[in-house]
Amino acid sequence: MSESEQDRVIGRYGFDEIAANHLEAWPNSYPERDYVTHFEIPEFTCLCPRSGFPDFATIIVDYVPDKQVVELKSLKLYINAYRNRQISHEASTNAILDDLVALLSPRWMRVVGDFTVRGNIKTVITTEYANPEYHGPRPELKRFLPAIG
Amino acid sequence: MSESEQDRVIGRYGFDEIAANHLEAWPNSYPERDYVTHFEIPEFTCLCPRSGFPDFATIIVDYVPDKQVVELKSLKLYINAYRNRQISHEASTNAILDDLVALLSPRWMRVVGDFTVRGNIKTVITTEYANPEYHGPRPELKRFLPAIG
Amino acid sequence: MSESEQDRVIGRYGFDEIAANHLEAWPNSYPERDYVTHFEIPEFTCLCPRSGFPDFATIIVDYVPDKQVVELKSLKLYINAYRNRQISHEASTNAILDDLVALLSPRWMRVVGDFTVRGNIKTVITTEYANPEYHGPRPELKRFLPAIG
Amino acid sequence: MSESEQDRVIGRYGFDEIAANHLEAWPNSYPERDYVTHFEIPEFTCLCPRSGFPDFATIIVDYVPDKQVVELKSLKLYINAYRNRQISHEASTNAILDDLVALLSPRWMRVVGDFTVRGNIKTVITTEYANPEYHGPRPELKRFLPAIG
Amino acid sequence: MSESEQDRVIGRYGFDEIAANHLEAWPNSYPERDYVTHFEIPEFTCLCPRSGFPDFATIIVDYVPDKQVVELKSLKLYINAYRNRQISHEASTNAILDDLVALLSPRWMRVVGDFTVRGNIKTVITTEYANPEYHGPRPELKRFLPAIG
Amino acid sequence: MSESEQDRVIGRYGFDEIAANHLEAWPNSYPERDYVTHFEIPEFTCLCPRSGFPDFATIIVDYVPDKQVVELKSLKLYINAYRNRQISHEASTNAILDDLVALLSPRWMRVVGDFTVRGNIKTVITTEYANPEYHGPRPELKRFLPAIG
Amino acid sequence: MSESEQDRVIGRYGFDEIAANHLEAWPNSYPERDYVTHFEIPEFTCLCPRSGFPDFATIIVDYVPDKQVVELKSLKLYINAYRNRQISHEASTNAILDDLVALLSPRWMRVVGDFTVRGNIKTVITTEYANPEYHGPRPELKRFLPAIG
Amino acid sequence: MSESEQDRVIGRYGFDEIAANHLEAWPNSYPERDYVTHFEIPEFTCLCPRSGFPDFATIIVDYVPDKQVVELKSLKLYINAYRNRQISHEASTNAILDDLVALLSPRWMRVVGDFTVRGNIKTVITTEYANPEYHGPRPELKRFLPAIG
Amino acid sequence: MSESEQDRVIGRYGFDEIAANHLEAWPNSYPERDYVTHFEIPEFTCLCPRSGFPDFATIIVDYVPDKQVVELKSLKLYINAYRNRQISHEASTNAILDDLVALLSPRWMRVVGDFTVRGNIKTVITTEYANPEYHGPRPELKRFLPAIG
Amino acid sequence: MSESEQDRVIGRYGFDEIAANHLEAWPNSYPERDYVTHFEIPEFTCLCPRSGFPDFATIIVDYVPDKQVVELKSLKLYINAYRNRQISHEASTNAILDDLVALLSPRWMRVVGDFTVRGNIKTVITTEYANPEYHGPRPELKRFLPAIG
Ligand SMILES: [Ca+2]
Ligand SMILES: [Ca+2]
Ligand SMILES: [Ca+2]
Ligand SMILES: [Ca+2]
Ligand SMILES: [Ca+2]
Ligand SMILES: [Ca+2]
Ligand SMILES: [Ca+2]
Ligand SMILES: [Ca+2]
Ligand SMILES: [Ca+2]
Ligand SMILES: [Ca+2]
Ligand SMILES: [Ca+2]
Ligand SMILES: [Ca+2]
Ligand SMILES: [Ca+2]
Ligand SMILES: [Ca+2]
Ligand SMILES: [Ca+2]
Ligand SMILES: [Ca+2]
Repeated sequence: MSESEQDRVIGRYGFDEIAANHLEAWPNSYPERDYVTHFEIPEFTCLCPRSGFPDFATIIVDYVPDKQVVELKSLKLYINAYRNRQISHEASTNAILDDLVALLSPRWMRVVGDFTVRGNIKTVITTEYANPEYHGPRPELKRFLPAIG
Repeated sequence: MSESEQDRVIGRYGFDEIAANHLEAWPNSYPERDYVTHFEIPEFTCLCPRSGFPDFATIIVDYVPDKQVVELKSLKLYINAYRNRQISHEASTNAILDDLVALLSPRWMRVVGDFTVRGNIKTVITTEYANPEYHGPRPELKRFLPAIG
Repeated sequence: MSESEQDRVIGRYGFDEIAANHLEAWPNSYPERDYVTHFEIPEFTCLCPRSGFPDFATIIVDYVPDKQVVELKSLKLYINAYRNRQISHEASTNAILDDLVALLSPRWMRVVGDFTVRGNIKTVITTEYANPEYHGPRPELKRFLPAIG
Repeated sequence: MSESEQDRVIGRYGFDEIAANHLEAWPNSYPERDYVTHFEIPEFTCLCPRSGFPDFATIIVDYVPDKQVVELKSLKLYINAYRNRQISHEASTNAILDDLVALLSPRWMRVVGDFTVRGNIKTVITTEYANPEYHGPRPELKRFLPAIG
Repeated sequence: MSESEQDRVIGRYGFDEIAANHLEAWPNSYPERDYVTHFEIPEFTCLCPRSGFPDFATIIVDYVPDKQVVELKSLKLYINAYRNRQISHEASTNAILDDLVALLSPRWMRVVGDFTVRGNIKTVITTEYANPEYHGPRPELKRFLPAIG
Repeated sequence: MSESEQDRVIGRYGFDEIAANHLEAWPNSYPERDYVTHFEIPEFTCLCPRSGFPDFATIIVDYVPDKQVVELKSLKLYINAYRNRQISHEASTNAILDDLVALLSPRWMRVVGDFTVRGNIKTVITTEYANPEYHGPRPELKRFLPAIG
Repeated sequence: MSESEQDRVIGRYGFDEIAANHLEAWPNSYPERDYVTHFEIPEFTCLCPRSGFPDFATIIVDYVPDKQVVELKSLKLYINAYRNRQISHEASTNAILDDLVALLSPRWMRVVGDFTVRGNIKTVITTEYANPEYHGPRPELKRFLPAIG
Repeated sequence: MSESEQDRVIGRYGFDEIAANHLEAWPNSYPERDYVTHFEIPEFTCLCPRSGFPDFATIIVDYVPDKQVVELKSLKLYINAYRNRQISHEASTNAILDDLVALLSPRWMRVVGDFTVRGNIKTVITTEYANPEYHGPRPELKRFLPAIG
Repeated sequence: MSESEQDRVIGRYGFDEIAANHLEAWPNSYPERDYVTHFEIPEFTCLCPRSGFPDFATIIVDYVPDKQVVELKSLKLYINAYRNRQISHEASTNAILDDLVALLSPRWMRVVGDFTVRGNIKTVITTEYANPEYHGPRPELKRFLPAIG
Repeated sequence: MSESEQDRVIGRYGFDEIAANHLEAWPNSYPERDYVTHFEIPEFTCLCPRSGFPDFATIIVDYVPDKQVVELKSLKLYINAYRNRQISHEASTNAILDDLVALLSPRWMRVVGDFTVRGNIKTVITTEYANPEYHGPRPELKRFLPAIG
């Protein structure tokens, strides 16, 4: 492949930031309310555990924070870190839920992994956590994805 | 019909894989949670039981696994195997539910067969199974299909 | 209007089939389940009872069969037969419900008549029947129609 | 402005029909059922009470008739009559509800006024009436409007 | 079919208007310009010449008037008159072109018949007339544009 | 119709501004370039010359200014002034072109009137002016593009 | 797989009609005009020449007939006959062009094979024939337009 | 940057109106009904508290007024005033709720801040207030936003 | 407005980066080809020259680089710098063209300013530069295409 | 991160196939025609040359083959191989063109890299090659068309 001189002057700080990252929590400024934060992260990619071929997904997180909220840049770098991991659709979606629940102890959280088609089959994984004492809103997932076809 | 030499060098391993396939179950890595797996399989085709003419559908499966999940490649080949069967819309949709419930004993499962128009009428079949002891999420089917017209 | 010779060689079997048709019921192969059949019939037309001008609609039927299902070709011809009838929006939608309930004794049925604009007003009629002993799914009508404009 | 001779030969019967109109009720042919009639009326316009500048809306009516249904032509002319009235978004939407409830004594009715943007803000008013003894369907408003942007 | 008393009080003036109609031309108020008029007529229906079963189409007309324009109500009634004719897709589209060219002697005209699916095949017929001396715009067929938003 | 006290406190300055308005031209700051200005004005309404019933349209203007550009507020008020005029689709679209060409002497201009359906027929009028010495861009009519996403 | 008794009563006439079919030509009623016929055939399926796994496509045909037009039912059955053939994307699209040109000797024809994704890659093949003496319209490939509304 | 003379003649009244504005309440003309007012305000912008870079959002407000409604122009100017504030997604959405609840004492209110993507992540904040004695409609948020991609 | 402690810890580096920025050019690695770079920048905002109220636009740039390409981060900061400028729609779109042409001396460039509605009128400005010796592609403005599906 | 035993049994053959792959050419079965092959490859990802952070794009290839066509599986693996390369938008798009032209010596080819937003700016690169003796179709870039319905 032909490549220009310019493109050989490459930087590596992105690799370093992803490797050094830890999910970070910040104090919730509005703990008195059960408000919902919804994230859509369309650039998730990982590797198939069986083959090593790439998989792609949009990750959607909805949660009601308790004492803490997730810091956005650390969440982005956390997602970036899946790029070179071999992990199944079910495992990555559930692992994101596990990791965010462990960090934040939210009142309620749902994670959706909306994966692209493999072997003519599209897969979407939805997994949810709730503090047993929580009775606030659990908004339906309105917008799974555009329709096939 | 004219055809090039190249196209005559045909392979048959797809036929063999479809014929030899059995639906396969794998252990569920997250049995402690009632999470939902959603599949969309847009390339279903079978034959009309009355005429033998082809029918086309998107099959949509939602389920909450218990001890086992379905292996994706075996599901694809299972769907491929309907291509030469003569079977009605109701029968194919219910048979897919029967076969997956028999394999997986899921907590809950719904199968939708979203067929293309025949005789100016579009048909969608929705059929569902639930373990009587299951009380977790049964997500509404959000995205039946794009609107006519 | 100019017309070619070819187009004068006309056939009449469609008229005969529509005139001779009766809605026909077939046995339900899966009576043990409360599954839902959804039909969309976009080519309904009838005549306005006040003027005789044509009306157009999409008819949408959802039902849970009990012992019988409707045969599709007879349903198509039944719908065709409205072409020359003068009947209001409410009357046609309710009449289709009456006729299908009388034929099938379903567990539950809903008929929607989604008519095109007349006098700058779009009308959609929704009417429903349920056997009092039925407690299964009554799926919400997801997809009324595309938005105006 | 230049104008052709033809366009000067103007008629006035529309003005007369709008001025003479009264909302008209007809007997409900299916009073034994709680069926829903849905209207969309995209060509509503009135005048801002503060300035006199034009406002535009789509009016959406859903109702379950009791003994009477509204006659469509009289409804169209009733809507036309708002063209020269100065009335707020809240007042017009609630007034349409009041007038139709007074005419029809429906079992249930909802009126939505979906107005176009003014001052960078889009406003939608939703107002509802129910006979206290009514326990039938109150269909959710599926299709508020197309998304911004 | 059950029917209410009300729906038996039927009117016939629509039949009479359609039967008595002739396509009507009016003077073009702007003959000095080559401007384009585009019509979309989504409620065309006729009968298949081979079977008598109904066909449905949207008819689209674009033309550059010369001395005359078509009167809209007479065009609507002309289109209504196809409802009971047995005529092929090609013949109806070309006949509409012939009739409008004969009436108007336009500088340029194109008629499209955009028919619904029959036998799994959708058909669109496009046919065009131009006065040999005409050198003005012949706009490509594309839907002009949805309204803002 | 019931109405609150508040809504009776009405203002009239909008009427006055519309009545007093004249289309206004401003100097073009970039006369050395053939750049295109595109306007979409979705809230046009006038009255049918035959009946007095309301008509609705989106007006689309594209032009290449020469020495002057149109002032936007005066254009809005000019469009508002059609609300009480009885004028045909062809006449209003061509009149807007005439008036803007008279005001601005542009290098090139096109006006489109995209009217809502009347009598089941949608009408779009396209009319164009060019200075004979102009040889710059005449962009095809297409909606520029939705924002990303 | 479980199957009801009813679904075992299968018919075979579709197989027979497909096997016996020959593409059939009819006289063109409007040979004096260069009009365009556009077909969309969304239910094409064949088998991959390398593996035997199914492929799916929409076939789009545009042509300007000369003396003959293709009969629609024979075209549908011709397309059905690809279901059990092993043939590449390029070969099937070009073969359809070859066969229709051989049958009809059209003035101009274009065939598009718009295949679904395989190996994460979507493929669309476009191939065209023109009689060297033909100078009429060769419409660009674009979806004609959605219906109004 | 080059700039014309005209563009240097700038006005400042917008700055003054925004600076002088206070959210203003008006009496609710229909306090006897629990009706819902829905606002969409697509042109919200503020500054990131960490960096000072701009953020963009659509703000969506739904509320059931009690004795008072918010005056629209004062709401627009209130939203304009965020342009130069450094404030987080959570803080701005909750602050709008706080300020409107303090002004209006509504029966129920929900505010959504639908922010554009930052660091590949889209964020939507939903926060809600209800008077404990309120038992009327709390309409689901139907239309969060268009889908990614 | 209520605000949490956390949100008071604000940073200013964004202000500094925007203030210090200069548009920056990099060498074009592929000067031997006339390739086209297309940018969409949906988060442009400036201030109205007459009032000081905010305006919003998507800026779209297409260009064929010669010896240099624009560095993306400096382009983003350049666009950010319009936030506090009072400038008209025509002036900002033409100024962006002027500044980029001065920086890059491209073979061809087009800038579009697609502004949101003001006074019920949407405005889109399109302005273009070409080196007189350039004869390569000048792609029509159309949104490239949505992703598959 | 929690992970199940199952997900630790990982395979590596995908890595090996990507590493060993070479773009492969096959004979063109229809060299006598200038037909167009269009590919859409939505799962392209590489790494930013400046930072190492991931970039995402859809790659679109259109070409008219001469003696050879590209083998699809080798094209997929070639695209996969960009996952760990640090390369700019311009360089990757032009490199794909260079590599495919070197392999196939096509009559004409165009490659588009449609990248996701970075720093609020979306970038699309379009680059093209033509054999100087080629005079056949060079289809404009437009998405072919959605399937019917
Ligand atoms: Ca906070
Ligand atoms: Ca599609
Ligand atoms: Ca697992
Ligand atoms: Ca059955
Ligand atoms: Ca719209
Ligand atoms: Ca009635
Ligand atoms: Ca959008
Ligand atoms: Ca006229
Ligand atoms: Ca200026
Ligand atoms: Ca014919
Ligand atoms: Ca539409
Ligand atoms: Ca009020
Ligand atoms: Ca998309
Ligand atoms: Ca470069
Ligand atoms: Ca080949
Ligand atoms: Ca559609």
